[in-house]
Amino acid sequence: MSVLVISPGRDPEVWAKELRNQHPGMNVYVYPEDHEKEEVEFAVSWKHPRGIFKNYPNLKVIASMGAGVDHITSDPEIPEHIKITRVIDEDLSSDMSAFVLGLILDHMRNISLHHSSKKWEPKKYQRIRDVKVGILGMGVLGTAVAKSLQLNGFQVSGWANSTREQEEIKIYSGADQMEDLLRETSVLVNLLPLTPQTENILNKDLFQKLPKGAYVINVARGEHLNEHDLLEMIDSGHLSGASLDVFRKEPLPEEHPFWAHSKIQITPHIASITNPGSVVPQIIENYERMTEEEELMNVVERQKGY
Amino acid sequence: MSVLVISPGRDPEVWAKELRNQHPGMNVYVYPEDHEKEEVEFAVSWKHPRGIFKNYPNLKVIASMGAGVDHITSDPEIPEHIKITRVIDEDLSSDMSAFVLGLILDHMRNISLHHSSKKWEPKKYQRIRDVKVGILGMGVLGTAVAKSLQLNGFQVSGWANSTREQEEIKIYSGADQMEDLLRETSVLVNLLPLTPQTENILNKDLFQKLPKGAYVINVARGEHLNEHDLLEMIDSGHLSGASLDVFRKEPLPEEHPFWAHSKIQITPHIASITNPGSVVPQIIENYERMTEEEELMNVVERQKGY
Repeated sequence: MSVLVISPGRDPEVWAKELRNQHPGMNVYVYPEDHEKEEVEFAVSWKHPRGIFKNYPNLKVIASMGAGVDHITSDPEIPEHIKITRVIDEDLSSDMSAFVLGLILDHMRNISLHHSSKKWEPKKYQRIRDVKVGILGMGVLGTAVAKSLQLNGFQVSGWANSTREQEEIKIYSGADQMEDLLRETSVLVNLLPLTPQTENILNKDLFQKLPKGAYVINVARGEHLNEHDLLEMIDSGHLSGASLDVFRKEPLPEEHPFWAHSKIQITPHIASITNPGSVVPQIIENYERMTEEEELMNVVERQKGY
Repeated sequence: MSVLVISPGRDPEVWAKELRNQHPGMNVYVYPEDHEKEEVEFAVSWKHPRGIFKNYPNLKVIASMGAGVDHITSDPEIPEHIKITRVIDEDLSSDMSAFVLGLILDHMRNISLHHSSKKWEPKKYQRIRDVKVGILGMGVLGTAVAKSLQLNGFQVSGWANSTREQEEIKIYSGADQMEDLLRETSVLVNLLPLTPQTENILNKDLFQKLPKGAYVINVARGEHLNEHDLLEMIDSGHLSGASLDVFRKEPLPEEHPFWAHSKIQITPHIASITNPGSVVPQIIENYERMTEEEELMNVVERQKGY
């Protein structure tokens, strides 16, 4: 019985090392080194080559290295019986919260703008209590961000696909109530999971429901955003700008118009980076549960995609 | 009995209007319009022309428009019997807290840096819990900033000239303990009042006591900083950079080397702007206390300078 670490976009050796250190005796293969496919029952994965998992006849679990699982669920060739798990990690939540807070404060106080203008041009700023933040996606990360912003005095509401119980934060739910959230949002933060239903959800139709001057922050996935619609709505003056951490193609190509746009702030997918040392214990726990045939933690509902 | 509004650097009419609106019947002069100097007993001031107040024989109170009073106390020709008051305002405190929090998050997460580089170069980021903030000056603003940072999970210590009681935050005091604070500080925030004792306090001697890689934020007064020493300590690699909101000369001259320095972030003195509407009530309260010969609020100790 072996574990396969497969992550073409990230250094897999760090993960292999942590797994071996924290579970001595575990047999770990690092893709694409030679290995017996029949031996592999458990994979730790990030952006695997499409279609590859159907060649592992005894594979039972694919553990995502991060909070998102769209890179797994979007592969139609993963056999139905394989379980997919995600990471839920305190660091991921607090890093995301700090990053979104930083982006919003930067926007309100024009910090990057002043920095890049190289000119002494004081601007009127917004106060925290006057900023209404709307969060799309009230899962683990969305809820953590909402609580952090509320703690700092922002007006915060959230939207979730299904009804959520959350005493402290007002949550709208379902397609019907999306417009109610958007109408009262001056800063929109996208933290939805990427599914066929949420792809391109940040489009002209949605932007038009935001008040004039609203600001958009995307820290989920590039595929949530219709890039053309965003540019059109900023250039028309309806949106005041956007902070984007994620893109359809990463790294964002040099020739992409986002780079040169004065109202678009770009960060290179750094909102929240999984720390292998801190999440490997929960991956090992699931590995052991699998071997003991116990119920796994943080299993994704494949039909929902999160 | 009249009130004089005098603020060459700011629009005085806004203040005059708020005073008249909130206290109908108050006789308000706006400098430099014609007025009877003998009539003026109360002045609302920001950066008055040096020496002017000695010409007002019946002047009893000079109320600063902001939290700082160095622009008043630095004038040696203000008669000793005149009382000087400052503004203590919830908005000033919360705006300053939000701004400092924004600057620190921007630094930790390299937001402005990524923005201005226009390149896809992800950098390792710091986590909030690993950042040790040291605050120079634990007055009203310093304490507000410290509490806000602590609420967000930072490690926070403060330094004050005299011993302060503050249960939640560790405060070092006196010249002896300054080094203890500096030694354990990775981000230094200056919020000291400007006095002859604190002028040029941010100098090479102090910077050398910070750990290598420390970051400096000055949101108090430009005169606190020895500019040459800052540049030297950044260029030598001892300091990782600085965020400066205040300068010896404002606007910062176009030819100043700070503008072009990649590790110095400049904002045009916007940390915390007094909102006349919200502070005029406390100014009127002091005006009424003066007429009733009652004790004034927020009086500055002139020998201390704050």
